[in-house]
Amino acid sequence: MKKGLLICLALASSTAFAQAQTGNLKINQQRIQNRLLELSKIGALPNGGVDRVGYSKADQEGRAYFIGLMKNAGLDVSIDYAGNIIGKRKGKNPSLKPIAFGSHIDSVPNGGNYDGPVGSISGLELIETLNENKVVTEHPLELIIFANEEGGTVGSGAMIGKITPAALKSVTQSGLTIADGIRAIGGNPDSLSKVVRKKGDLTAFIELHIEQGGILMTQNQQIGVVEGIVGIEHWDATIEGAANHAGTTPMNVRRDALLAAAKLIVALNEVVTSQEGRQVGTVGKLAVEPGAYNVIPGKVVMGIEIRDLSYDKIWKLFHEVEAKAKEIAKTSETTITFTQSSVGVTPALTAKPIQDKIISVAKSMGFSYRYMQSGAGHDSQEIAQIAPVGMIFIPSVGGISHSPKEFSKGVDIGNGANVLLQTMLTIDRN
Amino acid sequence: MKKGLLICLALASSTAFAQAQTGNLKINQQRIQNRLLELSKIGALPNGGVDRVGYSKADQEGRAYFIGLMKNAGLDVSIDYAGNIIGKRKGKNPSLKPIAFGSHIDSVPNGGNYDGPVGSISGLELIETLNENKVVTEHPLELIIFANEEGGTVGSGAMIGKITPAALKSVTQSGLTIADGIRAIGGNPDSLSKVVRKKGDLTAFIELHIEQGGILMTQNQQIGVVEGIVGIEHWDATIEGAANHAGTTPMNVRRDALLAAAKLIVALNEVVTSQEGRQVGTVGKLAVEPGAYNVIPGKVVMGIEIRDLSYDKIWKLFHEVEAKAKEIAKTSETTITFTQSSVGVTPALTAKPIQDKIISVAKSMGFSYRYMQSGAGHDSQEIAQIAPVGMIFIPSVGGISHSPKEFSKGVDIGNGANVLLQTMLTIDRN
Repeated sequence: MKKGLLICLALASSTAFAQAQTGNLKINQQRIQNRLLELSKIGALPNGGVDRVGYSKADQEGRAYFIGLMKNAGLDVSIDYAGNIIGKRKGKNPSLKPIAFGSHIDSVPNGGNYDGPVGSISGLELIETLNENKVVTEHPLELIIFANEEGGTVGSGAMIGKITPAALKSVTQSGLTIADGIRAIGGNPDSLSKVVRKKGDLTAFIELHIEQGGILMTQNQQIGVVEGIVGIEHWDATIEGAANHAGTTPMNVRRDALLAAAKLIVALNEVVTSQEGRQVGTVGKLAVEPGAYNVIPGKVVMGIEIRDLSYDKIWKLFHEVEAKAKEIAKTSETTITFTQSSVGVTPALTAKPIQDKIISVAKSMGFSYRYMQSGAGHDSQEIAQIAPVGMIFIPSVGGISHSPKEFSKGVDIGNGANVLLQTMLTIDRN
Repeated sequence: MKKGLLICLALASSTAFAQAQTGNLKINQQRIQNRLLELSKIGALPNGGVDRVGYSKADQEGRAYFIGLMKNAGLDVSIDYAGNIIGKRKGKNPSLKPIAFGSHIDSVPNGGNYDGPVGSISGLELIETLNENKVVTEHPLELIIFANEEGGTVGSGAMIGKITPAALKSVTQSGLTIADGIRAIGGNPDSLSKVVRKKGDLTAFIELHIEQGGILMTQNQQIGVVEGIVGIEHWDATIEGAANHAGTTPMNVRRDALLAAAKLIVALNEVVTSQEGRQVGTVGKLAVEPGAYNVIPGKVVMGIEIRDLSYDKIWKLFHEVEAKAKEIAKTSETTITFTQSSVGVTPALTAKPIQDKIISVAKSMGFSYRYMQSGAGHDSQEIAQIAPVGMIFIPSVGGISHSPKEFSKGVDIGNGANVLLQTMLTIDRN
């Protein structure tokens, strides 16, 4: 009993000691900003943006630069068969499963300098901070830079085994197929099965990322605690009326497919905005046939997207849109049919215990915070299938993303990196 | 005095005699139908339609066929510098200006067999009927087959001097420029000024045409007395919002250009349909940028058309649409600008005395009739600038036109040709 108590006290004291030792650790904000600047020069565009599309030459250059930094930080760096860059740092207890963190450094075409690099460089900064303070964590650590996130979370997708042979053949924005792209960055598309991680292989995965929306900025808050990454469903709505002479066909006998489509666009907006919640619904594309001033449109095909954290809600909203479409079709004498696209993404929830740790860390540092959902897809969404995931957002100025105008302030990035560091350390201590 | 009275009596008796002699003349409906069938074989498509685009090989073949028929009917046939086919028949009184009639035989791509040919072949039928009945009119007659009507009433436009040197360079559906097209059918684009007719050069021009809409058919009426050919104005509406991430941008901060465009489409329809009259308003084309499921549309450009017999009404309606656009722009935080296209067409009214003659002829033949406007453009619209014009419509089955499904019944065509004949004879007697 006594011995047990002593061990307990020793353990408690060791945890308290570790917290005392690491609880005040701070990252070096200036170093993060310097590295963001360095990385932004690779694939730089004259407009201030960047083109570092996954698998492209610029992406390869960016990866080489980053691997150099990781090696300099003493990480044991390898490239897995999917092309993900993995930097390992040993922990005191090799029997524990690693705590992983990271993001991506590839960009969309004509993109910005923060979506991906903020989480990647901050992840590296954690390692540097631990190194400088001679801190060795209990758990092994892994800094993961996922390959080709913007092309459909390919690297993280491979890690959960969801990249199909068919997907490997699809051509990416780099001009290469995914298979050839993976080869170009040192992976091997024939060995992807060896990349797959099982449930339990990681203690946790944490990703710091820019919000890519304007909520934190407009609400003047510093940290976003991501509750989950929304599910996405796409449908094509096909509206068929009757193409006819726009001069000789009286208004009351028209079967105008574009007029019906316009009413459906307005109805979708009404359905999505008339209910509580953070769901979004968008008509982003629309094609009219035949498409001439003097011909009443006979056919419209438009792309509908609905996102929400609840899969049920996505479908509930869609069914309401369908009901509205039925009415519109009836009054406009058109037919409206919906085809679901195959690119649906299931919502991914982050782990409640990690959310709680992020909040307690943010509070202890005096940062304002709020729960939010991620409207964009992220590598975390894939990894959530095999590990408890946490995700930290920092403000995007003007809510702008996927644009050369994308920008986050140095101080906000620094705050996020400190929250990332302390959240990791809190997980490590528990 | 006595002598004068005698002359008067003689004139009256001569008119009465002429009416007695010609008032019962009837065209040969079967011959018209046979010739429609013959002409439909030239440029025939497997779907039952026809492709006899102005200046094309098929158009040239069709013209050769038609010129043959005109010559067989004893007409003095020539091709003017614009490529119009003119068939002349002498009248008793060479000092009188000719009464002209006719239409066109070119088609839209993938067109039908009635739009143009009905008026052209019926015009020829008048000549045949006069020949068979050995009737010589007071006025000289001209059967005119206008060149390239579907490409923008080019032949009739040349006749009123409105084909500009710039227009001659524009490329037509045949692949040829208008200038080369005119050469291909035996005209000379450098001598178009010699084609121009002055006001007073024609006593009248009468055109028989299919309605191209469904009013006569649905209202079960046989003859349409065209009051005028509508004016047409085109505008491009440009709606600019902000392209943004469709996942991360909450509904209440969006500046969705397509949603605003949809509201504008609905508003245009409301403006046009909420007022008495036969005006029509159409949004026939629309382009969305950037055009992806997951991006809120930042820009939409759409083509608006308004047609009416009154130019003032067209602009009144447009200004109401503009006012609605202002409200929509305000609430959607978008900008909406309108640019008028240069292809506007001025409304053209037909001559009231000819309308009256068409009605009295239709009545005397026991045909049901109604006043109507032509929503489509016609050669008559150009000729109205230099001569009193009359236009007779016959029913289009299903209101379908510019389509292989275009169809008019033989009996309706026959009725129309008889009204055309008697209207011409009535004008001739007055």
